[in-house]
Amino acid sequence: MKKLAFLFFSFIIALSLSCKDGNTSKSSVDSSSTSDVIDKSDIERIEPPNWWTGFKNDTLQLLVKHDNIGDFTPSISYNGVSINKVSKGDNSNNYLFIDVIIADGTPAGRFNIKFKNDNGDELIDVYELKTRSKPAEDYKGFNSSDAIYLITPDRFANANPDNDTPIAMEGQEGLLEKTIDRTNNYARHGGDIEGIINHLDYIQDLGFTAVWPQPLLTNNMKRGSYHGYAITDLYQIDPRFGTLAEYQELSQKAEQRGMKLVMDQVANHCGLEHWWMKDLPFKDWVNLQDNYEKNINNWNNDVTINSNHRRTTNQDIYASKYDSDGNSKGWFVSAMPDLNQRNPFMAKYIIQNSIWWIETAQLDGIRQDTYPYPDKHFMSDWAGAIMTEYPNFSIVGEEWSYNPLLIGYWQEGANNRDGYDSNLKSPMDFAMQSKVVEAFNEEESWDRGLVKIYEGLANDFHYASPKDILIFPGNHDMSRIFTQLKGDIPNTKMALATYATMPRILQMYYGTEILMDDFDKPGDHGLIRTDYPGGWEGDTVNAFTGEGLTPQQKDMQAFVKTLLNYRKNSKAIHEGKTVHFAPFMGTYFLFRTLGDETVVLIVNKNDKPITIDLKRYSEIGLDGKTLHNIISGDEFIWNDAIELTTKGPILLTTKTN
Amino acid sequence: MKKLAFLFFSFIIALSLSCKDGNTSKSSVDSSSTSDVIDKSDIERIEPPNWWTGFKNDTLQLLVKHDNIGDFTPSISYNGVSINKVSKGDNSNNYLFIDVIIADGTPAGRFNIKFKNDNGDELIDVYELKTRSKPAEDYKGFNSSDAIYLITPDRFANANPDNDTPIAMEGQEGLLEKTIDRTNNYARHGGDIEGIINHLDYIQDLGFTAVWPQPLLTNNMKRGSYHGYAITDLYQIDPRFGTLAEYQELSQKAEQRGMKLVMDQVANHCGLEHWWMKDLPFKDWVNLQDNYEKNINNWNNDVTINSNHRRTTNQDIYASKYDSDGNSKGWFVSAMPDLNQRNPFMAKYIIQNSIWWIETAQLDGIRQDTYPYPDKHFMSDWAGAIMTEYPNFSIVGEEWSYNPLLIGYWQEGANNRDGYDSNLKSPMDFAMQSKVVEAFNEEESWDRGLVKIYEGLANDFHYASPKDILIFPGNHDMSRIFTQLKGDIPNTKMALATYATMPRILQMYYGTEILMDDFDKPGDHGLIRTDYPGGWEGDTVNAFTGEGLTPQQKDMQAFVKTLLNYRKNSKAIHEGKTVHFAPFMGTYFLFRTLGDETVVLIVNKNDKPITIDLKRYSEIGLDGKTLHNIISGDEFIWNDAIELTTKGPILLTTKTN
Repeated sequence: MKKLAFLFFSFIIALSLSCKDGNTSKSSVDSSSTSDVIDKSDIERIEPPNWWTGFKNDTLQLLVKHDNIGDFTPSISYNGVSINKVSKGDNSNNYLFIDVIIADGTPAGRFNIKFKNDNGDELIDVYELKTRSKPAEDYKGFNSSDAIYLITPDRFANANPDNDTPIAMEGQEGLLEKTIDRTNNYARHGGDIEGIINHLDYIQDLGFTAVWPQPLLTNNMKRGSYHGYAITDLYQIDPRFGTLAEYQELSQKAEQRGMKLVMDQVANHCGLEHWWMKDLPFKDWVNLQDNYEKNINNWNNDVTINSNHRRTTNQDIYASKYDSDGNSKGWFVSAMPDLNQRNPFMAKYIIQNSIWWIETAQLDGIRQDTYPYPDKHFMSDWAGAIMTEYPNFSIVGEEWSYNPLLIGYWQEGANNRDGYDSNLKSPMDFAMQSKVVEAFNEEESWDRGLVKIYEGLANDFHYASPKDILIFPGNHDMSRIFTQLKGDIPNTKMALATYATMPRILQMYYGTEILMDDFDKPGDHGLIRTDYPGGWEGDTVNAFTGEGLTPQQKDMQAFVKTLLNYRKNSKAIHEGKTVHFAPFMGTYFLFRTLGDETVVLIVNKNDKPITIDLKRYSEIGLDGKTLHNIISGDEFIWNDAIELTTKGPILLTTKTN
Repeated sequence: MKKLAFLFFSFIIALSLSCKDGNTSKSSVDSSSTSDVIDKSDIERIEPPNWWTGFKNDTLQLLVKHDNIGDFTPSISYNGVSINKVSKGDNSNNYLFIDVIIADGTPAGRFNIKFKNDNGDELIDVYELKTRSKPAEDYKGFNSSDAIYLITPDRFANANPDNDTPIAMEGQEGLLEKTIDRTNNYARHGGDIEGIINHLDYIQDLGFTAVWPQPLLTNNMKRGSYHGYAITDLYQIDPRFGTLAEYQELSQKAEQRGMKLVMDQVANHCGLEHWWMKDLPFKDWVNLQDNYEKNINNWNNDVTINSNHRRTTNQDIYASKYDSDGNSKGWFVSAMPDLNQRNPFMAKYIIQNSIWWIETAQLDGIRQDTYPYPDKHFMSDWAGAIMTEYPNFSIVGEEWSYNPLLIGYWQEGANNRDGYDSNLKSPMDFAMQSKVVEAFNEEESWDRGLVKIYEGLANDFHYASPKDILIFPGNHDMSRIFTQLKGDIPNTKMALATYATMPRILQMYYGTEILMDDFDKPGDHGLIRTDYPGGWEGDTVNAFTGEGLTPQQKDMQAFVKTLLNYRKNSKAIHEGKTVHFAPFMGTYFLFRTLGDETVVLIVNKNDKPITIDLKRYSEIGLDGKTLHNIISGDEFIWNDAIELTTKGPILLTTKTN
């Protein structure tokens, strides 16, 4: 016990340092300008905890939180840095918002911010402007060449049991959810950042080029905090996942092997236990704040505070104000207050937070949660601000809609009649995800079965850029693809092959490769996010080594590995021309071509052998060519016909290697 | 028998005159220029049979059909008219295509076209240029103020039994389908144009403002010719429906009462027995002509000639040429060859045919069949040519798609990425039609039931002009709405009220008002198109008089009448602002407002009484106002709440009359 308490104490120290200082290892500090800088701050909280020189946007707004800081006047004496404006919250005297201008050419360095009140009291904070570690253009986002591995960090691998249960120090409370319990699917299980780092080899070996862990920021909630979306501190890694240094290590280790790191961010809401909920700076800092404050003691039962989730109000020209407000001004759920991005201080806070994480963790992309819930004009500003600073960056936004009209609306470059441009390069394709599932679950007929893929992809004519849309067999919020496909392995292989070859960015959820399922309680979030076997010491099955996997699991793991490793280097899949043919006799043919490389996807739903006349496909120009079966390695000469002997996918390529 | 034979003889004479001369009663003929004009033509067929002066497009292309006419050279001597070019068919010597220029200011009149060959033979045709009977701007199309009554003419009313069975004259064959048989739903039943004319009172009394009869042109097919879509002569009224004069009378009688006439046209295909099928002018006059000619004796069994009906190929950026050609170059069905509009002579033929009918029958609008099957660029040219000549005209195109992306694509003003603009003001809204049905058939839940209406209408943001789209409870190709709604009368009323109040052009199929159904064999075309009771002498039920109708039928008839008569004068429904609210407690509220008039549609699916708090809807500004129940005539004061006692629609208006 003593040892654990000590560990936790050290950890808190490390954390507070890292929060204050970030990772300075990469920054060159101009020590000449820091001679009078104090070592320790008097101020409870300043956010962002540091900033950088050299942004296109030369303004910075600091949130200062401290008892009665509203009575103080700040000053800065540093070459190039000036205070433009100081604002107070209208709901609390414990906040100041300092608008700072960082002139072009301002040197990196540390400096004091001094606060004085009329009583002559002085408080001092030390603040740092760092040098950016690489040019803005070098932040390369993900694109259709990528296959992103989505991980629920609490459930993937527990490399460091020491951080599982932060123990309260004497006189301090520690985190609210105090235990792990692997028998409870809604409790913490102990997975952590180190667990991801340790298995990057495995992930890369499978053919993935990027990882997207669910949010790793502190979710200091009483219960159900494992998923990460109830953030209670937007500048802190959850200690149960690890440290900022470990997150940065994840980024570096990924980069070293040519992999990308996508951060899951949440602009719409925070956790109810977010530190500011006890002392809100403005009367409109969160949505329906009046309502919340009146109901603070029974928020759990107050349904009127919740969003109506009528997301179509974002586009609907007939939407009532009642419904529009109900969607964007309600709370996502009772435990997650919606942030009010119409408050300009909140808006700036969120934008700066995203940029802080891009710089601090050298991100390659952001996945933004619940995209259609915040004020949509703010979301456009947010994405625009990021893309202005990082022109090659990528953001993918979650719009859970099966309606291609709405998916299209949210993509940058949409020809929207209302003039809205989201600045969002990558929406998510829930529509196509579901069409592929229907295609394999339904019996073939004129308008059912494989035609769902054919007509689903036909909708691509509507999108500004189909290949920048993210497709996925499943994610943390939906039934496992193997469950969606009713445990049918050939159908699962066909679905994965279809997702992987269509003109999209590909994302898969951890465990898809080993047929993880939620048959016991389909759709149950806790069950969907089951522990990855082998991620915990003592696991009898280890999917990382293959130990204890069933033959079916091993076969699927090998299939995914072969599929994604081909995809990784296939310019035809990344950027190629797409041609497909209407379903025929229970088959569907999709061709991707770039230069000499043509990839042929054939899905075949027939249990009995059939022969397909290849004359149908002669326009592709493959006649007489030798193709290679990507999965089996066999050769196939494209001539008159192809015999399809078993239900399942066939992937052929003209590439010899 | 003799008498009938004589009647038919007289009829054929009348017909040939009318085809040759059209209706000259309205035209003023410049007799001074017609002194040398012959009375009778040597030529078998010239189409269009006449033309007009004063079009914006000063060109006219005449199709001349006569034995070996390819050996002849035509000449015209008439002030202002010159031959620009003469072309022959490449498949038959029996055609000439004469490109004529009609100079600005050319007087109306009749003149000879002389044909001479090298042998010195001369053939003479008389041709007429008429004066247009009204300015082009006065052809006012339909719009959202209209409610269009769609009629299957063979099944509506048989006013003239004499034209039911055209008997062959001696030595002539007559029409191929020789009998009527009211016991066979796929045979002719005898309904005719006079039957429509006689019941315009009834139709207008119901509140309709326009009639759309299915095609009235000759369908000289061996069987199944009753529906009208297998046209075998594009310049002739089917003698079983009546005469051109009767069609013109229908137009005039409608116009006199302020009603509009919509002509159902078919640019995509003709009937297999079309006169030109036995002697095709060009090798590519119809699609897959080679194939057809090889298979002429077994066309009925040759499925390869048919369209693949993959209409998404019109938009799909990934569509194979194989599928695109399969859609637009195949035949609609084996009995209906697809016309090849890529042949410029065919293209001109179809465009001129449409304009000929607009002028000849003083049309108010065209309904164009199977819109996405012909070459889409031709369809744009076709609609563009008409709209150029008649800027206030209306065309509605049939695209049977449940996908709003495709509906939107076909509407003029769509922001299509491929640059396509259809010139089509009014697509059809099969999507919304089906959403309303789902709304009432499904149990209420988060994403089922009334939300289908709410989210369906929310898609309107995508359309160039939602109010120019045509909505309908049903049509001649789909189950009767009462059958679609499983015989539920309150649901049927709610559906009709919903269709009638949404921002759309409204169309209803004859018999909807008396609950006509197809329960016995749902979806059966012959059954859907059942005889209208009272349309035939001796019918025991007469829906025109109400005799023999059930109380439920009378009630629905009265409901439709009240609904449409209100709609007829409701500017709020025609043009008003639309605001709606997400479904709530099994109800859906839709508001249409223009100036002082607000129309409120409330649909209520609850069997038990409920009370709805009206505060939800306060933004509409109705608080304290007295509203009138459009159906019951009762008054309702809009205050705190409304009690809904029975399942069904409530329609309220702020208008006092």
